[in-house]
Amino acid sequence: MSRIPDRLVECVPNFSEGRRQEVIDQIVEAIRSVPQVWILDVESDWDHNRSVVTCVGEPEAALEAMYRAIAKAAELINLEEHRGEHPRIGATDVVPFVPLRGVTMEEAVELARRLGQRVGEELGIPVYLYEAAATRPDRENLANIRRGEYEGLKEAIKTDPDREPDFGPRELGPAGATVIGAREFLIAFNVYLNTDDVKIAKRIARAVRHSSGGLRYVKALGMLVGGQAQVSMNLTNFKKTPIFRVVELIRREAARYGCTITHTELVGLTPLKAMLDVAQWYLQLDGFNESQVLERRLEEVLQNEE
Amino acid sequence: MSRIPDRLVECVPNFSEGRRQEVIDQIVEAIRSVPQVWILDVESDWDHNRSVVTCVGEPEAALEAMYRAIAKAAELINLEEHRGEHPRIGATDVVPFVPLRGVTMEEAVELARRLGQRVGEELGIPVYLYEAAATRPDRENLANIRRGEYEGLKEAIKTDPDREPDFGPRELGPAGATVIGAREFLIAFNVYLNTDDVKIAKRIARAVRHSSGGLRYVKALGMLVGGQAQVSMNLTNFKKTPIFRVVELIRREAARYGCTITHTELVGLTPLKAMLDVAQWYLQLDGFNESQVLERRLEEVLQNEE
Repeated sequence: MSRIPDRLVECVPNFSEGRRQEVIDQIVEAIRSVPQVWILDVESDWDHNRSVVTCVGEPEAALEAMYRAIAKAAELINLEEHRGEHPRIGATDVVPFVPLRGVTMEEAVELARRLGQRVGEELGIPVYLYEAAATRPDRENLANIRRGEYEGLKEAIKTDPDREPDFGPRELGPAGATVIGAREFLIAFNVYLNTDDVKIAKRIARAVRHSSGGLRYVKALGMLVGGQAQVSMNLTNFKKTPIFRVVELIRREAARYGCTITHTELVGLTPLKAMLDVAQWYLQLDGFNESQVLERRLEEVLQNEE
Repeated sequence: MSRIPDRLVECVPNFSEGRRQEVIDQIVEAIRSVPQVWILDVESDWDHNRSVVTCVGEPEAALEAMYRAIAKAAELINLEEHRGEHPRIGATDVVPFVPLRGVTMEEAVELARRLGQRVGEELGIPVYLYEAAATRPDRENLANIRRGEYEGLKEAIKTDPDREPDFGPRELGPAGATVIGAREFLIAFNVYLNTDDVKIAKRIARAVRHSSGGLRYVKALGMLVGGQAQVSMNLTNFKKTPIFRVVELIRREAARYGCTITHTELVGLTPLKAMLDVAQWYLQLDGFNESQVLERRLEEVLQNEE
């Protein structure tokens, strides 16, 4: 028997430790210690020296779990000694809240702000709010907040008014600073082409991505993977820029170069809704609603029973 | 909080009463009285004088619920007085078991046989096993078993060796006989064309349906609905004849007549897997597995917790 709560957020905290397993374990354990929070995935990367935890939970429980994880990471990770390829400014580098079910983006933003305040005040760690939780436009983009990394921010936080944190002291300790925010679910999605010409993948990436004139919620790069051209993407809002539209646009652009799609690849997880939207669009299934999915209907009946 | 059992079957019992609400209510109540069985839908049709209940449950619970419903229907419905447009031979006319999750077709067949034996022996109602549970090829098809209806079967059951029931007496009481069996999930799916020429829908139906040379698990009719040509279908095994293949074949046949699909329609429920298969195929999403759907992954984590 399984129990899925009616209100769910996803959290994807990034920690600046990808090598010492005992440290990663203790941070994960801090998350796991909160009831109604479930860990779906832990990915550690040696070169990046970074771990990404994917978990979901009831909103209040998720907030508590993130607080405990940030406290534990601050205790165990010293940024003065941290080396890794991935840009970072803190022991807990980033914590996004993602509304999944029965939770609005506004509520996710509120969770981010409350967590930020608590981390700033109780742990003395500077906190920057980002994306939907950002308090100023130049903090919507994570890369902006992280520029100069820990080493550069150490000085800048004291002197540069643009780097003043949203919560906590204007001073970095060995735990660095933490970026906390709210965003939509991020789908990592790759499309493979029947060519080994990476230039074509790069051109298509330029055509479909937002930054160079393409679709609003697409980040894309062209690369060569196993000798095959690949358009590698982050889809940052599948509700507004759905997967099927991205695939069909790539298919058309590829045809322009005499190419076609051999297959695609979903890296990690996707919300059910993103897949149902794809099925509905290709089938032209007007009037479809999720309650027509037997498993969903059953969940509803079970919820009404209580 | 919702709880979805690990082992689930669907039952879609058909009762020969679509007019007297108090009778329908009592039958539904008999099903509802069994824990771990949930009613998803009740459809009653006045002209057919027939009700179809869609429910799911744990296998043993579903068997018990069907037994109680059959007993209740036998008590309240008298086939001597029943009139309706839909062919029928019993108060409880048909009971299919459909394996949904953690249950094989063999187990669904076993449930059908056990229910049939109990209904025959304890209630004295003749039972015919059909589809995957059939004991002879001429009983795989429900229409064969039902030919002559209640009125015709009354005599034939006594005299025709081919009409001897699998369980119960060779004699019909006022509750008639019941057909019990196991089958795959049935998806009712309609495709609309941009024409008012019903002949085109009829031609396409002939092209795609099994009986006239088309796809193995498709039943199809061409009709006119609200002035628009429609291919109306039952997809009787979406695992072997998936929805996307049916739609794409219809799309191609329609093009032959200079037509196209305006939209499609799902009548009632579909298993999640049928929709995921559609998304995976159109996206060419090789290597996709259901655990990549966040909600599915969460269910697995919850199950492992226990």
